[in-house]
Amino acid sequence: MDTYIRIFDTTLRDGEQSPGATMTSAEKLEVARALARLGVDVMEAGFPAASPDDLEAVKRIAQEVGNTTDGSRPPVICGLARATKNDIDKAWEAVAPAARPRIHTFLATSEIHMQYKLKMTREQVVEKVREMVAYAHSLCEDIEFSPEDAGRSDPEFLYQVLGEAIKAGATTLNIPDTVGYTTPEEFGGLIAGIAAKTPGIENCVISVHCHNDLGLATANTLAGIRAGAHQAEVTINGIGERAGNTALEEVVMALTTRHPMYQCVTGVDTTQIARVSKMVSNYTGMSVQPNKAIVGANAFAHEAGIHQDGMLKHNQTYEIMRPEAVGVKQTRLVLGKHSGRHALKIRMADLGYNLDDAELSKLFDRFKLLADKKKTITDTDLEALISDELYQPREYFSLEGLQVACGTMGMPTATVRLSGPDGQMHVQAAIGSGPVDAVYKAIDGVIKAPSTLLEFVIHAITEGIDAMGEVTVRIASGEKLPSITVQTEREQVRTFGGYGADTDIIVASAKAYLAAINKMLVATGQYEPAGAGEAVAEVTVA
Amino acid sequence: MDTYIRIFDTTLRDGEQSPGATMTSAEKLEVARALARLGVDVMEAGFPAASPDDLEAVKRIAQEVGNTTDGSRPPVICGLARATKNDIDKAWEAVAPAARPRIHTFLATSEIHMQYKLKMTREQVVEKVREMVAYAHSLCEDIEFSPEDAGRSDPEFLYQVLGEAIKAGATTLNIPDTVGYTTPEEFGGLIAGIAAKTPGIENCVISVHCHNDLGLATANTLAGIRAGAHQAEVTINGIGERAGNTALEEVVMALTTRHPMYQCVTGVDTTQIARVSKMVSNYTGMSVQPNKAIVGANAFAHEAGIHQDGMLKHNQTYEIMRPEAVGVKQTRLVLGKHSGRHALKIRMADLGYNLDDAELSKLFDRFKLLADKKKTITDTDLEALISDELYQPREYFSLEGLQVACGTMGMPTATVRLSGPDGQMHVQAAIGSGPVDAVYKAIDGVIKAPSTLLEFVIHAITEGIDAMGEVTVRIASGEKLPSITVQTEREQVRTFGGYGADTDIIVASAKAYLAAINKMLVATGQYEPAGAGEAVAEVTVA
Repeated sequence: MDTYIRIFDTTLRDGEQSPGATMTSAEKLEVARALARLGVDVMEAGFPAASPDDLEAVKRIAQEVGNTTDGSRPPVICGLARATKNDIDKAWEAVAPAARPRIHTFLATSEIHMQYKLKMTREQVVEKVREMVAYAHSLCEDIEFSPEDAGRSDPEFLYQVLGEAIKAGATTLNIPDTVGYTTPEEFGGLIAGIAAKTPGIENCVISVHCHNDLGLATANTLAGIRAGAHQAEVTINGIGERAGNTALEEVVMALTTRHPMYQCVTGVDTTQIARVSKMVSNYTGMSVQPNKAIVGANAFAHEAGIHQDGMLKHNQTYEIMRPEAVGVKQTRLVLGKHSGRHALKIRMADLGYNLDDAELSKLFDRFKLLADKKKTITDTDLEALISDELYQPREYFSLEGLQVACGTMGMPTATVRLSGPDGQMHVQAAIGSGPVDAVYKAIDGVIKAPSTLLEFVIHAITEGIDAMGEVTVRIASGEKLPSITVQTEREQVRTFGGYGADTDIIVASAKAYLAAINKMLVATGQYEPAGAGEAVAEVTVA
Repeated sequence: MDTYIRIFDTTLRDGEQSPGATMTSAEKLEVARALARLGVDVMEAGFPAASPDDLEAVKRIAQEVGNTTDGSRPPVICGLARATKNDIDKAWEAVAPAARPRIHTFLATSEIHMQYKLKMTREQVVEKVREMVAYAHSLCEDIEFSPEDAGRSDPEFLYQVLGEAIKAGATTLNIPDTVGYTTPEEFGGLIAGIAAKTPGIENCVISVHCHNDLGLATANTLAGIRAGAHQAEVTINGIGERAGNTALEEVVMALTTRHPMYQCVTGVDTTQIARVSKMVSNYTGMSVQPNKAIVGANAFAHEAGIHQDGMLKHNQTYEIMRPEAVGVKQTRLVLGKHSGRHALKIRMADLGYNLDDAELSKLFDRFKLLADKKKTITDTDLEALISDELYQPREYFSLEGLQVACGTMGMPTATVRLSGPDGQMHVQAAIGSGPVDAVYKAIDGVIKAPSTLLEFVIHAITEGIDAMGEVTVRIASGEKLPSITVQTEREQVRTFGGYGADTDIIVASAKAYLAAINKMLVATGQYEPAGAGEAVAEVTVA
């Protein structure tokens, strides 16, 4: 008899909190829709107490993804809250519009966290858990509780805390290895102990939440499942703080590929995995290395690109799963310059994007421009275009023109024309150490918002030398912003990712940088325009 | 009592064989030196039967890294061979110059491989193993044998094959999970069975070799070690075919961080890990994702870049290892435009690069050029320069000049001037869909060697907007080359990586593409010059 394992995706919470992975509300909503198509049981949509923007993003997901009109069962929408009334109130405000809302609250139970972070005794921790779980349960039926840093907590104390949480109304008990410290034997043993010794656990779901600091997150999660956990907390591509969380695709494909061993099933449509992976990588700017399990470019490289000469008589000689099972397909030529609006709409629907007329019009204009430069438009081109066109942050500044000269003669020069929130055009020229530096200096000359470039990555997304180029950048804001991390409760210097796509990578670089800066301006709610008035042309020498 | 675990690094064999990770002989030698500094016990330097170039590269490593002059013990240098006399002869020819040579031979033992790939019966497999291990042992004292696809082999048959290999002279028995199929419980069980039931195993070293297709390579390797394996086969950054091999850094840091649990030690100097990781990533063009355990950019992100406001009273609240332990350091400002040759030489020696006078002169010229563009030169800048300057393939064509114009007006144009092997200058202009496309078309116009661009990645390697840009590209040769993959024994379409660094990313892109093409021309030993004679200027319209 197969065991059903609930997949709890926390890409939008633990994943999004990794440095630089900040997404806009529109991007979060799109990822949430993709996760619903993927078939996750629960999605943790955010940490509503972090900022008003975070609360709004969770609420919008609760409304739009947490309800269905076709009679199908929507996913559970979950909001994270520390064990305080304020956090729980905000989480409830955010998830309440969902048909199946959940509040997830947590408190640390390891000696080191209780002593140095909470400064609370065991008795105080038990009392706080009892009180706050009961309060959350007074608002919402479905309550999940996590003893933070469970991997390093005294098991006997854990049984007591979890027992109290259950009495107060928790129905899912999530066991996090917060610092990625445990081994599969230890973690499996911990879950088995909890399953055997926690009062009242038999009517609850045990959940596991692992981190990958030692490369053991997937193995620990599977060990937890074998020991009795019925929910796995995971993220797409394993993104998350530090070395990240357990990767959804690895756990799901291990359970699927080794079904006779685990005898577990999930609700995930595995053929959606490759697409969601790509979307999350684009929106967060967190690249996926070629040798990443399941979703890396090389994961099925014995299959793709390389000529099959028929010597392999039997696929399974070197293949334990089919690439189609996770939605990896050879890029097909789908559209060309003579394709019309209708063909584009149909193709986008096949790819899972349901566009309204305005969105389709914008995309079609970009599509025709691209088709003029590039003979064949592939699915990956279309996905880059849609990322670039439709899911950009509200724009304070937009790129109206760019002109660059560079080369080995050593005076890279850029001129940008930006339209600003004041409706004015701003023109600025700058010299840099390279063409991107010159463009960024020219943009900085118009938008005087302090920031630091942390990462800058360009990918050619499609094979062939006339590929579209995708650029992702991460910048750190020059000032502190009113957002806190869940774990350390510190105000943080927030970092923002930006994405741009164009056949000209310098143009894509300019778009990505502008997108990140626009995200930063949205988050701060302020900026300093270069000065209202006529367009100013000025050369800045670095 | 601690158990000593031998670290067998196969970055240069199984790692280098992953698509696009091809390294030049000079790069392989440099990686081998870095692995020796890292303290690996054994390095598998290549598969000498693959091609004469591969044999030469292994031989050079055996000579130069496999011997020491200071009385210290050099690492074992190992060459891989299929179970044939020819392969074994070539492996021996390559490793014989080392002070401590090893031949590693293998034959598949799973039903699916014996039936579909080998077309041999069990009896024939046993006989071949006996014969070929004995032959290898007649040449070399230190013999390792692997039953390929052991993870899917019948354990009773494995005990028999391994017992015969031991009788024939094998001293290390390596158990590969070739397709990354097993779980930690299964793999640990397999190793425990082999340790208990293989005749003669008590005098041999059991080794484990895992692949990461399901994300379980590290956990499987650790399970094998707990079950009695005393050697782990690993690669830097976990590179390797498909989803890669077990990552050296994960196994070593798990054993180190969780020493009380495993009670094992290795000979690895963990503070070298970050540097070797960066070198391998540069030379192979295999990027490391930010959320990669141990060596990803975010692995210690709670430490780097983000302001510490003193709220964390105790490091270990969220940190299970110190970044310094793996050699991660904040970038320090080390040199500026007034620094002299001596300062540069000292700094490079600190970084582990021992340069001769000619190398130092070349690097110093580049350093001064960079210092004119960039105020402060960091360690990472220096490492990019050295990668770019010193470890490039033999150049058939070199870049003498480049001029590019691009932007939103939509006619990206590039002009390149290349000096060719005929000593002539070739000038070519081209229009492309973007500036890189234009540059590559112009280069293709000179060097008429068919290839396909597979991957194109640009990184800004140092923080700050005037960063050096690093470009890695992978191209596939348009024709089949005389090299075979170990596993499938097919001739393959080989892919080549190239690397370039410059403050101007378009210039870096041109260098990287030329480096990859030069590698391809070295491998094929032929090219078609555009035509001897005067420099030709011609505009190609895409």
